[in-house]
Amino acid sequence: MKTYLDCIPCFFRQALEGARIIKASPEQQKQIIDGFARKIPGISLEASPPEIARFGYAFLKKISSEGDPYKEIKQKSNRIALRLLGKLRDKVARSRNRLLAALELAIAGNIIDFGVKNHLDVGAELKKILARKNGSVCRKRIFHYPEFRRALKTAEDILYLADNAGEVVFDRVLIEEIRQECPDKNIYYAVKDGPIINDALFEDAYACGIDKSAEVISNGTEAPGTVLDLCSREFRRIYKRCDMVISKGQGNFESLSDERRPIFFLFMVKCPVVAEAAGARMGQIVLLYNLKQRNKRRTSLRT
Amino acid sequence: MKTYLDCIPCFFRQALEGARIIKASPEQQKQIIDGFARKIPGISLEASPPEIARFGYAFLKKISSEGDPYKEIKQKSNRIALRLLGKLRDKVARSRNRLLAALELAIAGNIIDFGVKNHLDVGAELKKILARKNGSVCRKRIFHYPEFRRALKTAEDILYLADNAGEVVFDRVLIEEIRQECPDKNIYYAVKDGPIINDALFEDAYACGIDKSAEVISNGTEAPGTVLDLCSREFRRIYKRCDMVISKGQGNFESLSDERRPIFFLFMVKCPVVAEAAGARMGQIVLLYNLKQRNKRRTSLRT
Repeated sequence: MKTYLDCIPCFFRQALEGARIIKASPEQQKQIIDGFARKIPGISLEASPPEIARFGYAFLKKISSEGDPYKEIKQKSNRIALRLLGKLRDKVARSRNRLLAALELAIAGNIIDFGVKNHLDVGAELKKILARKNGSVCRKRIFHYPEFRRALKTAEDILYLADNAGEVVFDRVLIEEIRQECPDKNIYYAVKDGPIINDALFEDAYACGIDKSAEVISNGTEAPGTVLDLCSREFRRIYKRCDMVISKGQGNFESLSDERRPIFFLFMVKCPVVAEAAGARMGQIVLLYNLKQRNKRRTSLRT
Repeated sequence: MKTYLDCIPCFFRQALEGARIIKASPEQQKQIIDGFARKIPGISLEASPPEIARFGYAFLKKISSEGDPYKEIKQKSNRIALRLLGKLRDKVARSRNRLLAALELAIAGNIIDFGVKNHLDVGAELKKILARKNGSVCRKRIFHYPEFRRALKTAEDILYLADNAGEVVFDRVLIEEIRQECPDKNIYYAVKDGPIINDALFEDAYACGIDKSAEVISNGTEAPGTVLDLCSREFRRIYKRCDMVISKGQGNFESLSDERRPIFFLFMVKCPVVAEAAGARMGQIVLLYNLKQRNKRRTSLRT
């Protein structure tokens, strides 16, 4: 999706919240806001939001004394989520439909997002997720589960695009379930190449143990999404070759929603612009198969 | 109060919503956003939010073909509110404490604010206000009513600072009640000098009939608040002379909250930064006597 003008106030809010997370002084916070404001007239709205948001985060990095200002937050998210691993697996094991349960948990784990919400009590949020009854979040939502299951059966190579640190543990539970059902697939788990907000890096993937079930690769960029033009050639080759792509989080949706190849987008809807673009509602958890959604939109335009 | 960095994303949101209200094309909307972004590095956060917000609205006016892009909206607000005049008077007449009822209604009428909320169903909001029981919105809030009543008894000249069109009808009901209790006061009703969002101008004051109970004056500026340095000398003279000032709305609070003279601020809390500055909570209706609040804060700092 392209960037909407409505994203611009939100970029400023994100930059400011980021500045506070890295404990920038008020003067530095103003510098970050000013630097980003100077960029605004030059940006093209044809770019996706993650392409633009990275300018704001570049200012954060310039000011932060740390190479990775969210490192501590990411490590904490990993630790909290890892403590839940047993409970997450139990919840899946006790479900009548294990794959569906693992999918729901993986999407719900997308709550761990500091780009959207600054003061996040990760532990409390995750407890709420675990307290939910299976299927209780299923009603009135986009959930292309039959298509997902069908694609899984026929796919040979699966590319799973990671979103946030911590959330990786939830992805791990889903990938373990996929492995259980279809043991002989190649599964690639793609993380960002360098620090951007709390997006998962190699170290988070390994810390959360996802390397036990998937081959961890880098997408070659530091954008908070999968901006293909900025990704490495190696990543693009894998992206093209894999016959099933599972994409986590809004950032990946924002950067890949216009792709014409089949992609399953798993995310929690956290912004009204994305809600509009996905045909969903704020706060919904979504499993969206882009080709089905596109056909549906075409049909509704015709009628 | 000074401007907080948190206000900046909000200025952009307001400018964008304003651009849509004046039916600016997407290109014009981008121009407005870009123009305001260029201003950001040059602004001082020591200025109050209304001083800065007026830059954004200046871009709106430059692009709008109308001299007063909110004229139609203001006229509609006036019409809707005027239709309620009888009911508002009835509500006051049926109350055990007429002055208190009129005060509550005047503050609740501050819901009519397009600077904060774009899509506002004024009629529906006002019906909700009328459906409230007296005193039902009184609990757990800042409501310096005894101080207000005392000040009213001793004051000779009262200056009432208007906020939005439509809301003027609610102010009229309060001023009628003040006149009823203290018939021989001079009451000045100050409106903005030129169009700024949906703030009341002379024409709105007259359309809402407030001239029957107060002398309508202009504050000499087009800022969405009362920025004294920008106000006319004539207005400042009256401001100094009046021994009671009643200030409506957040914009007037933002620009006058640091004043050391006694002021009664009547407004609905619509933003977290103002909530923090006023020691109130979002959504609360507030009757705040600045000197009392200041003493309270001093005491709490000492303890």
